[in-house]
Amino acid sequence: MKIVVLKFGGTSVGSIKKILKVTKIISGYIKKRYKVIVVSSAMSGETNKLAKLTKKISSNFISSEYDAIVATGEQIACSLIAGGLSDKGYLSRSWQAWQIPIITRGDHSHSRIININKKNILRFLKKGGIPVIAGFQGINSENRITTIGRGGSDASAIMLAKFFKAKKCIIYTDVDGVYTTDPNVSKKAKKIKQISYEEMLEMSSLGAKVMQPHSIQDARLNRIDIEVRSSFSNNNGSLITKRKNISNRNIIRGVSFTKYDSKITLIGVKDRPGVAAAIFAPLYKNSINVDMVVQNISSNKRETDLTFTVKNEDLLKTEKIIKKNKNIIFKKIIVDEKVSKVSIVGVGMITTPGVTFRMFNALAKKNINIIVISTSEIKISVLIDRKNLNKAVDVLHKEFKLDN
Amino acid sequence: MKIVVLKFGGTSVGSIKKILKVTKIISGYIKKRYKVIVVSSAMSGETNKLAKLTKKISSNFISSEYDAIVATGEQIACSLIAGGLSDKGYLSRSWQAWQIPIITRGDHSHSRIININKKNILRFLKKGGIPVIAGFQGINSENRITTIGRGGSDASAIMLAKFFKAKKCIIYTDVDGVYTTDPNVSKKAKKIKQISYEEMLEMSSLGAKVMQPHSIQDARLNRIDIEVRSSFSNNNGSLITKRKNISNRNIIRGVSFTKYDSKITLIGVKDRPGVAAAIFAPLYKNSINVDMVVQNISSNKRETDLTFTVKNEDLLKTEKIIKKNKNIIFKKIIVDEKVSKVSIVGVGMITTPGVTFRMFNALAKKNINIIVISTSEIKISVLIDRKNLNKAVDVLHKEFKLDN
Repeated sequence: MKIVVLKFGGTSVGSIKKILKVTKIISGYIKKRYKVIVVSSAMSGETNKLAKLTKKISSNFISSEYDAIVATGEQIACSLIAGGLSDKGYLSRSWQAWQIPIITRGDHSHSRIININKKNILRFLKKGGIPVIAGFQGINSENRITTIGRGGSDASAIMLAKFFKAKKCIIYTDVDGVYTTDPNVSKKAKKIKQISYEEMLEMSSLGAKVMQPHSIQDARLNRIDIEVRSSFSNNNGSLITKRKNISNRNIIRGVSFTKYDSKITLIGVKDRPGVAAAIFAPLYKNSINVDMVVQNISSNKRETDLTFTVKNEDLLKTEKIIKKNKNIIFKKIIVDEKVSKVSIVGVGMITTPGVTFRMFNALAKKNINIIVISTSEIKISVLIDRKNLNKAVDVLHKEFKLDN
Repeated sequence: MKIVVLKFGGTSVGSIKKILKVTKIISGYIKKRYKVIVVSSAMSGETNKLAKLTKKISSNFISSEYDAIVATGEQIACSLIAGGLSDKGYLSRSWQAWQIPIITRGDHSHSRIININKKNILRFLKKGGIPVIAGFQGINSENRITTIGRGGSDASAIMLAKFFKAKKCIIYTDVDGVYTTDPNVSKKAKKIKQISYEEMLEMSSLGAKVMQPHSIQDARLNRIDIEVRSSFSNNNGSLITKRKNISNRNIIRGVSFTKYDSKITLIGVKDRPGVAAAIFAPLYKNSINVDMVVQNISSNKRETDLTFTVKNEDLLKTEKIIKKNKNIIFKKIIVDEKVSKVSIVGVGMITTPGVTFRMFNALAKKNINIIVISTSEIKISVLIDRKNLNKAVDVLHKEFKLDN
């Protein structure tokens, strides 16, 4: 069977008109003789609306009931799609996680899919049916509804593609692919035809709008090709696939950035073994994501200066936690909430020397000061003043031949 | 176990504030050492909102998906209640029909409950838990979500009371009981402390606002006492019970009415065997409820005059069907859309002669003309001009000592 998984995000099913458009997209694949498994998110806004209801009951609403409530969003969207397809004369029905079942493990609201019973869906596909499956949800061993923490409905789609050995998983969303940089920032941004899982993961600050990193990782591990495309246009999307499948040999695939970062520097931290853990453990516990970290060796051997970045929205909380922390001693805290991080991403840089130099040189020529640097195998990130962000994106986009 | 079933209607859970009130009501029964089974409807307005979505997809939306969609309303309300109770420190959880399961038979959207698996709920009750069960829904033999056509969540509550041998089923709604007549029409309306199932069934034109006739019938068959009361006040409600439990010996229990009726008279209908069926069958097929029917023997033996009533909202459709009907021949159709039906209801009339006379006499004294009469064992109904409705209700309410 030539199976394809089509996943529709919240904006793709955000209104009845859009849902009817979705049924047209699905019927297009049926006409091409694909066996189609549909996965849908809730209509855009619904999940937030439901979550708000629970918060009004209690700021500490029990997660098992929270999951049962938010899972209704996907249930409704799937039944509307299946109803729309039935109305057009197709054999179609909705499947909720408990009806398949999709088995998850882990805490409520943070579960992971560990098994999918294929029997009934396969039988339905063989009869020519179009199953429309609720994303984001599962059931646990106690027969209670769970939701998938990271990746949501994308993760459901990837796992369905894995279990049903689908040719491809197509993610329909409100953007028509992955771009070399944010089109809202640079007019030179180009759609990327093909990108490797690894590059896509590193582009996640851009790609987050497209797909959750966790789902890309799942796809990578299971070697599932993902196409990201828009349900609002017929434009070709972007293919996320294995490195070796990629024909485009650009060294750098894209320029990504996070705009609203804050830099925190602790001056004169009393240095002793475990001091980094003492600083970061309470931040981690409070779900604060620490990004770049630099430790400067101070002239005084018993002291060190430590710089790290967090998202702007976490700054106040971070300062509070640092100041309350009795396990660390430091002289001064300096905060800069007007910094941004710019990154160049590309598997090509592994085999191409001089990429770092070209990046720094290009920025220097434009008088852009680099505050912090961090690198991975296929990514170089620099922290800069936010006022230089657009200029930096433009110059790097040009330097690495992404303008063409 | 002293089990009580508490059912909350849509208005009782119509907002977060009201849901928090509901958790207080529930905790009151727990403090009185009851084992409580909670059944909830969807938050008011939700079911209609969901139904509208399906109509936008198709005027003929497939009923299996319709059921899956509207069932989410109860799912959300139950989880909010269970979450609220958990937040107060009670052991509580929501149960959807598939988790119990509640097994139904019959077509989608018109299913009936045929079995309830008691095992898990009983175990939970014994642990001191408060199960909050989604009303209105079940699953069929194919593991698909169904909804209960007639009676909705009330029917779920009655069936739960039956299967769990509950002491009582308490229906919390937005009115605080059953009245001798509509309080909006007559200031003399009094709350009825006790009413028999049979009387309540006949009062259904009033009682429809309180409970669906189908659920009252279920309660009657299973001898389950129902208390109807308001979730917004602490007033005592009305008890619907067996005849012999009732102490109040008033001949007449109440005066009910339907305000917006239409009378249709077919003059000179060619009379032959089966002519009534020929007239009414197509109306029945179009879900038009024909109420009072009178056939006058005409002087011409081959012809007859036929009068019947329908609800005003069905009048145009009825006329259309009658005029298109090729299986009947008649001379003329006369329509009066300004009539109302007034009824007196009471088991006492079986053993009390002269009730009919007293009714007609009381109306005659007020110059109220009776157009059509129909009677049952415990009810007498008369059709009158709508302009006389309030006057008729008042005079009958007084005549049968309901004013006191």
